[in-house]
Amino acid sequence: MIKAGIIGGTGYTGGELLRLLALHPAVELVMVTSRSKQGVRVDKLFPNLRGRLDLVFVESTNKVFKDCDVIFFAAPNGTAMQSAVMLLESGIRVIDLAADFRLKRSDDWEKWYGMPHVCPELLGEAVYGLPEINREAISRARLVANPGCYPTAIQLGFLPLLEARVVDSLSLIADTKSGISGAGRKAEIDILFSEAAENFRAYNVSGHRHWPEISQGLMRIAKGPVNFVFVPHLTPMIRGIHATLYATLIDTHVDLQNLFIERYSHEPFVDVLEYKSHPETRSVRGLNYCRLAVHRPQSGKTVVILSVIDNLVKGAAGQAVQNMNLMFGLPETAGLEWVSLVP
Amino acid sequence: MIKAGIIGGTGYTGGELLRLLALHPAVELVMVTSRSKQGVRVDKLFPNLRGRLDLVFVESTNKVFKDCDVIFFAAPNGTAMQSAVMLLESGIRVIDLAADFRLKRSDDWEKWYGMPHVCPELLGEAVYGLPEINREAISRARLVANPGCYPTAIQLGFLPLLEARVVDSLSLIADTKSGISGAGRKAEIDILFSEAAENFRAYNVSGHRHWPEISQGLMRIAKGPVNFVFVPHLTPMIRGIHATLYATLIDTHVDLQNLFIERYSHEPFVDVLEYKSHPETRSVRGLNYCRLAVHRPQSGKTVVILSVIDNLVKGAAGQAVQNMNLMFGLPETAGLEWVSLVP
Amino acid sequence: MIKAGIIGGTGYTGGELLRLLALHPAVELVMVTSRSKQGVRVDKLFPNLRGRLDLVFVESTNKVFKDCDVIFFAAPNGTAMQSAVMLLESGIRVIDLAADFRLKRSDDWEKWYGMPHVCPELLGEAVYGLPEINREAISRARLVANPGCYPTAIQLGFLPLLEARVVDSLSLIADTKSGISGAGRKAEIDILFSEAAENFRAYNVSGHRHWPEISQGLMRIAKGPVNFVFVPHLTPMIRGIHATLYATLIDTHVDLQNLFIERYSHEPFVDVLEYKSHPETRSVRGLNYCRLAVHRPQSGKTVVILSVIDNLVKGAAGQAVQNMNLMFGLPETAGLEWVSLVP
Amino acid sequence: MIKAGIIGGTGYTGGELLRLLALHPAVELVMVTSRSKQGVRVDKLFPNLRGRLDLVFVESTNKVFKDCDVIFFAAPNGTAMQSAVMLLESGIRVIDLAADFRLKRSDDWEKWYGMPHVCPELLGEAVYGLPEINREAISRARLVANPGCYPTAIQLGFLPLLEARVVDSLSLIADTKSGISGAGRKAEIDILFSEAAENFRAYNVSGHRHWPEISQGLMRIAKGPVNFVFVPHLTPMIRGIHATLYATLIDTHVDLQNLFIERYSHEPFVDVLEYKSHPETRSVRGLNYCRLAVHRPQSGKTVVILSVIDNLVKGAAGQAVQNMNLMFGLPETAGLEWVSLVP
Repeated sequence: MIKAGIIGGTGYTGGELLRLLALHPAVELVMVTSRSKQGVRVDKLFPNLRGRLDLVFVESTNKVFKDCDVIFFAAPNGTAMQSAVMLLESGIRVIDLAADFRLKRSDDWEKWYGMPHVCPELLGEAVYGLPEINREAISRARLVANPGCYPTAIQLGFLPLLEARVVDSLSLIADTKSGISGAGRKAEIDILFSEAAENFRAYNVSGHRHWPEISQGLMRIAKGPVNFVFVPHLTPMIRGIHATLYATLIDTHVDLQNLFIERYSHEPFVDVLEYKSHPETRSVRGLNYCRLAVHRPQSGKTVVILSVIDNLVKGAAGQAVQNMNLMFGLPETAGLEWVSLVP
Repeated sequence: MIKAGIIGGTGYTGGELLRLLALHPAVELVMVTSRSKQGVRVDKLFPNLRGRLDLVFVESTNKVFKDCDVIFFAAPNGTAMQSAVMLLESGIRVIDLAADFRLKRSDDWEKWYGMPHVCPELLGEAVYGLPEINREAISRARLVANPGCYPTAIQLGFLPLLEARVVDSLSLIADTKSGISGAGRKAEIDILFSEAAENFRAYNVSGHRHWPEISQGLMRIAKGPVNFVFVPHLTPMIRGIHATLYATLIDTHVDLQNLFIERYSHEPFVDVLEYKSHPETRSVRGLNYCRLAVHRPQSGKTVVILSVIDNLVKGAAGQAVQNMNLMFGLPETAGLEWVSLVP
Repeated sequence: MIKAGIIGGTGYTGGELLRLLALHPAVELVMVTSRSKQGVRVDKLFPNLRGRLDLVFVESTNKVFKDCDVIFFAAPNGTAMQSAVMLLESGIRVIDLAADFRLKRSDDWEKWYGMPHVCPELLGEAVYGLPEINREAISRARLVANPGCYPTAIQLGFLPLLEARVVDSLSLIADTKSGISGAGRKAEIDILFSEAAENFRAYNVSGHRHWPEISQGLMRIAKGPVNFVFVPHLTPMIRGIHATLYATLIDTHVDLQNLFIERYSHEPFVDVLEYKSHPETRSVRGLNYCRLAVHRPQSGKTVVILSVIDNLVKGAAGQAVQNMNLMFGLPETAGLEWVSLVP
Repeated sequence: MIKAGIIGGTGYTGGELLRLLALHPAVELVMVTSRSKQGVRVDKLFPNLRGRLDLVFVESTNKVFKDCDVIFFAAPNGTAMQSAVMLLESGIRVIDLAADFRLKRSDDWEKWYGMPHVCPELLGEAVYGLPEINREAISRARLVANPGCYPTAIQLGFLPLLEARVVDSLSLIADTKSGISGAGRKAEIDILFSEAAENFRAYNVSGHRHWPEISQGLMRIAKGPVNFVFVPHLTPMIRGIHATLYATLIDTHVDLQNLFIERYSHEPFVDVLEYKSHPETRSVRGLNYCRLAVHRPQSGKTVVILSVIDNLVKGAAGQAVQNMNLMFGLPETAGLEWVSLVP
């Protein structure tokens, strides 16, 4: 059994890790930390874990780390970089669900996250944990930067188009809609039920922290410059991201549907629907899947890709478990093969 | 492997059976019927089952039954009674998720369901499938009448009080709130999103079909007459029932909390929370659990029991699987040990 | 024009007062205070007021009060009592939407609100602002204690039964369901969208601050002792309260429907529906109405009253405007005759 | 008083017309028809109108038309064209909220709506009822084609850009999100609460009936060819449309914010927010406003316009009343100046 620990287990991504790891056949969850809930039983905060997990939140100390084979950081940005060096030196593998190791350039980090990076020397080693483009590197990694939720849905949607060079990489648009849990479990007015229900709005249109991460990823895929417009919105539901992606075809003779089918034929967690389908976010609720559909309205020059994920699963905790499976040589789908609740 | 079939697999309880049986370690799902979707792939209607279930909806004929060890009826009231005799004679066990075999008296059936019963001779044999009161009988049954959703939440809440004779059985009140999926997957104006969201209302206060089922059950538990007031409400969420139960204490010295803890100490799917807790419906979403809490406001003569279930799981499909497990000698919890999504 | 001011205009009841007073034909809104938003335009916080209200939030000082004929306190409990004496001495009338003047006994206040009362001498003068029982006193009042939301829905439901002495006042139960806005506009985890949506739960079953207010009111109506059990729940919608009230008939021959029709025949804001109706909370959304329906399930000894209001209107700001209308000799319905949005 | 009638008053746009006209100071509502609810009191179907409207649904006959100065068709597509000629000949003005007179070419109508047009000779006379581009023509019109909901939000967003010729009219994209009420009050599975809540999805990406209407409108505004991609989505709320519009700047030196401010400075129902704002759909809930905001992410070549309306008001019934006001020489804002409910 792989011994796993979680730093910061009281938020939504932490809770989701707890849910997935509690049911994982090859993992023993040995510790979970919290700054605010030390001494509290985990199932007091997460009643869905009653009878499934017998742990108490503990303080984050070096002592509690030492029994772990792998540590997941489900803590705020800037947390993992504080102890990553020490953990790696102790032979503990690290998966950070926050942003500390996602950007390759430390000045980008400082600009978008407003704090200096304390271990820029690790940015080169850290592997960006999107298995669909980095499977081999992940399987050898000591340190994985788990992608953001929007970046996962968007990169998987644009990937076949950019790899095959059938669209203009200088006119990419992602119009994305996220459930409210994407904002985290924070006591903030804007995400109160009475503010967010029966309401729809865009936010951070002029600049969102996922923009540099996505731009970096798309450039890497396109092997060249990318011009990327990103408009995130909040939609009144708990879970789910729907990314609606627009690109301009430079090759209008390509069989787009086939391109997607081929590219993802061996991917366990990417499901390409029939041409002109409309994937629903609920079809991936609680699951580690990305479901995609291809459209070409009025047979014109614009290709539209619809991409849905659960922001807390394929967009966070599920992908982290998928990465762990790869890092430890487990079947990639271990602990991740459920069926979502519909309705 | 137990070979299972489902009659009427396109509604919400049918879909939930499909979800649970697709993941069940000891069951092979061999057929699912539909009147309206014959020839359609099941995962076309339930995209959450893509990659998990390779079946097509078929017509309901004797031929498709013959390979089954057990048949679940997730069809409208009045369906199971049409073929129950034939199936039982063929050695196939039957679990009806509708109401055909719940009421012991055929005249009650005719009064509340508006049609004559075609096999009243089976009403005596049919076992009411609430394992917490009927475990032994279920394990020997050929024909199980799976309880309704409200009846499950309400009977489990009143059970310890009535068995211990600490409350007046002539003044029982159940104020219940159900998610909208309880109304089924029917094309009706009243349960449209735009009608049911941002709205709360009672319905059928003057008479609901679950009233005779619950009254019959409570009388059986109380071993005497019962006076039961039942007020159902619709609350704007998809899944979940919250029953708030009121009874008048005749013995005010009893340790109510201990009474509940003791009664349910060996029940795998009934979870008694700490005294004065407030169970949330989401803590059982997708799960086969009933969570209960005991209150006695102002230390007065009224005991208040809070009881939550998922109407589609412990209130329907999950309980049906629990009954199947008992009928076939499987571990009672087989295929039912998940963790609910929170949030 | 009556010059009105609001102390504490950034919460939900404050915002609702702003909406109603901005459209009131006989009121000029001259000032609104805020501790946290001084200097901010009101329509920045409430974009629905763009083009309708040209005010900036100001600090709460004696200077800003002096132009007002009436001041509404939409501030936290314990605020109005700090300046009520001064305002009344200045000839300014006061309507407190918080709890400071609702309880007649200062020791009840201290017990339930955890702070000493600074002007208990005003508790006798303060008029409880439920027009349906106190219309005359309100019209002469300098100081009105606006009722709580639950107390409004519950008292209006029990009122005809208790006045006519047809039910046992020692076995009253109120099972109430509130939209999330009832918890106020506070940055708290429990009322986040992701916590409150797709979820239903009871809270404060063992003691809620509205219990003493309701008990006091029911005793006054019943002119005798009352035994009252109160179970509040949160339901996933923004606005609305549905109170389901249970009482035991001592006179089973009374025409209950007629009793309600008669009692409320001259009330502009209480609407008694047909016998056995099911009022919907959305039918009063944004309105100052209470809609009621009478049931007697199975023609038994228990009468069930269904009572719906909008917690922010008849349960707070609308009733405050109704009280102001009475205090200033305006038509009672001035500024309150709208039609709710359905759907 | 203008005497108004409504054909088809039981749907959501009909209900919204009833709400607005019941409060309109210059309108007497004299009749409302229904095929399915003849003889039923209007306030039985719309309880929000109790005490505000004393009408019964009647059959649609020539007799009931004769007292009307204006008739609103809130009926299915293909209804108004059946009687428009007769009504106009009788001197009754007609406002059709459906699509019968929106498209200028009858063959477009037949292609997109699947039925022949019975009075193509009226298509030339019919005035497209978007006051912001057609005010003068509307004020002289006998027959107004009220725009669709998406077309209103989208045209108002692109209008200043196309009129000023600052964007490439051959690369316009509208990514739109609609509340569920946009699908109408129809008994269909897809818009059940349990299907539409906690879910987000696109629909009709390959072709939506509003596409030709919008394309026609944009071409007229641009005075030239237009290439328009339209992707509609359903978002789990009752009311509201959020259109996110993308265009490529051909003039990158223009002051976009000023362009919008200037264009709409005299429009009573178009409100341009501060540069880089994020309008919320709830800020226009129940109101006849369109709120707009301008963005230019990363100061690039793509301009992003955010446009919100209430689909049932500015997107249907409110705009119809605005058109009626213009047609009858009333103040354009009569009966339309409310404040939306927030929260």
